[in-house]
Amino acid sequence: MIPEKTVLQLLLIKHLIDRNEWVVRELGWEIGVKQPVVESLLEELSQHYMLEISSGRVFWNPADIPSYIKPWGWTIIHRSLLGSTQDAARGHPPWTVIVAEYMLWGKGRIGKTWVTGLGGLWITLKVMVDPLTASMLPVLVPTILVRILRKNIGVDAWIKWPNDVIIDDKKLAGILVEAEAFKEQIIAYIGVGLNVNNRPPVEEAISLKDVLGGIIPRNRVLSMIIGWISRAPKLAEKPDEIREEYREYLSTLNRRVQAIMMDGSRIEGVARGIDEHGSLILETDKGMIKIDATETYQLRHIE
Amino acid sequence: MIPEKTVLQLLLIKHLIDRNEWVVRELGWEIGVKQPVVESLLEELSQHYMLEISSGRVFWNPADIPSYIKPWGWTIIHRSLLGSTQDAARGHPPWTVIVAEYMLWGKGRIGKTWVTGLGGLWITLKVMVDPLTASMLPVLVPTILVRILRKNIGVDAWIKWPNDVIIDDKKLAGILVEAEAFKEQIIAYIGVGLNVNNRPPVEEAISLKDVLGGIIPRNRVLSMIIGWISRAPKLAEKPDEIREEYREYLSTLNRRVQAIMMDGSRIEGVARGIDEHGSLILETDKGMIKIDATETYQLRHIE
Repeated sequence: MIPEKTVLQLLLIKHLIDRNEWVVRELGWEIGVKQPVVESLLEELSQHYMLEISSGRVFWNPADIPSYIKPWGWTIIHRSLLGSTQDAARGHPPWTVIVAEYMLWGKGRIGKTWVTGLGGLWITLKVMVDPLTASMLPVLVPTILVRILRKNIGVDAWIKWPNDVIIDDKKLAGILVEAEAFKEQIIAYIGVGLNVNNRPPVEEAISLKDVLGGIIPRNRVLSMIIGWISRAPKLAEKPDEIREEYREYLSTLNRRVQAIMMDGSRIEGVARGIDEHGSLILETDKGMIKIDATETYQLRHIE
Repeated sequence: MIPEKTVLQLLLIKHLIDRNEWVVRELGWEIGVKQPVVESLLEELSQHYMLEISSGRVFWNPADIPSYIKPWGWTIIHRSLLGSTQDAARGHPPWTVIVAEYMLWGKGRIGKTWVTGLGGLWITLKVMVDPLTASMLPVLVPTILVRILRKNIGVDAWIKWPNDVIIDDKKLAGILVEAEAFKEQIIAYIGVGLNVNNRPPVEEAISLKDVLGGIIPRNRVLSMIIGWISRAPKLAEKPDEIREEYREYLSTLNRRVQAIMMDGSRIEGVARGIDEHGSLILETDKGMIKIDATETYQLRHIE
């Protein structure tokens, strides 16, 4: 269920995607609400978007509007509302980025739901790559994200195995990579959900706005993600370097964790390493045990 | 709160308003859901809209798409979703009809909420008329509606005082007339909510589909409403004839009713007549009492 208010705010965003400056009164007519109502809806939106509201006008800063960047070789499709960006991407050619301001049925890893909020970055990058590059994506994408977050945004981001991005042990981003074969190549759907300026719905999550205390222009993050994904085939030529960087960012190493497996069983131990397939090596009471990401429903850092 | 499913169905309708024939698979990509999901969403919509789904295509019959009629002198604005058609009409010139497939904050008489469902006819007709015609609208509009429903649609519709339309004592349509002065003229916002092919949300309401057992092409009803409203100034020249026809359709006459007044008090009596201002004359234990529509929160037929 979605609050009426959110649906009206998504209607406002739809109009602001079409045109980033409006007379507030006209925007109210467009969505069918009175002026004080549209003012209060916009006021609340301005806590999560770079909106400037003054003298009866509203202006959405292009630095926060994903469709305003034009990365070479890519098409950006920007929608206010979608079922999921992963499913929407099916209808577009490779090298398309789908951005949704809100997903009704956002997807997480292994069939989990990904909850979106206004002001986050909810994207799917559709790419066509060689099988080697494709096989590296689950390691490459979180590595790229942490690199950007540390070096360009200046926050202390880490990877939580297998491919969540965390700050202060709270979830900042989730990644979902889906793939299908196309002749000799692989078409991959790289879904990234990054809490940028949204209010995360759960205590165990955090947004960049929470960390930095102000709204971040989303295009800074988005254009860097697209730039690095464009270089994925190049990066995948040196898999050992990528795996090394991944391990460097891995918060999970040498910590006590509890893994809840798909069959419901639980395994507790200290994370001692990652093998060449990306499986986590746990030191348990019963000796060393390897667990695979696809069989792991949830991993908790318990120390 | 609105179910996710309804929001996705409204997204589908939005695309079908833009173009009335689609390949189902492409429609799924547009809203970001998998093919079986879009099929099931459309299947359910086809119970309330004239949708034909076959060979992977969906076709919305123009007889059910309000923007497909072109009444002379009028502009039709057709939206999938609005706060309310009454508020949306403010931004348009007179002789505009706003049609919404769903209203988030639909308005009823005296601040009540009007609940919309998919497949109904939720409209506001904005007109500019002389003050005499404007003053007649609260009587004229329900009269016109009942006339259309009886003579053209063939159902046994009645007026429930002051201006609901009922069948079998169940609510079929609600009317809300708002007005503002413009120089010597009056700009009136005639809101009509008519349960056509929707499933009314309460037991005390009924739709034309319920009565007739099949989907009604909404444009038949809509074009007749617009046609008669165009003739409102002409009709208002003979106010006695209109009041006479209104009385003829008035189910409330000679029935025992209970009126709940705005101040919370209740008045019970037998409805004996309507005065020249449209007030209801009740025969009560304490003699004849006149009640005014603007002071009446709710009227119940109790016999």
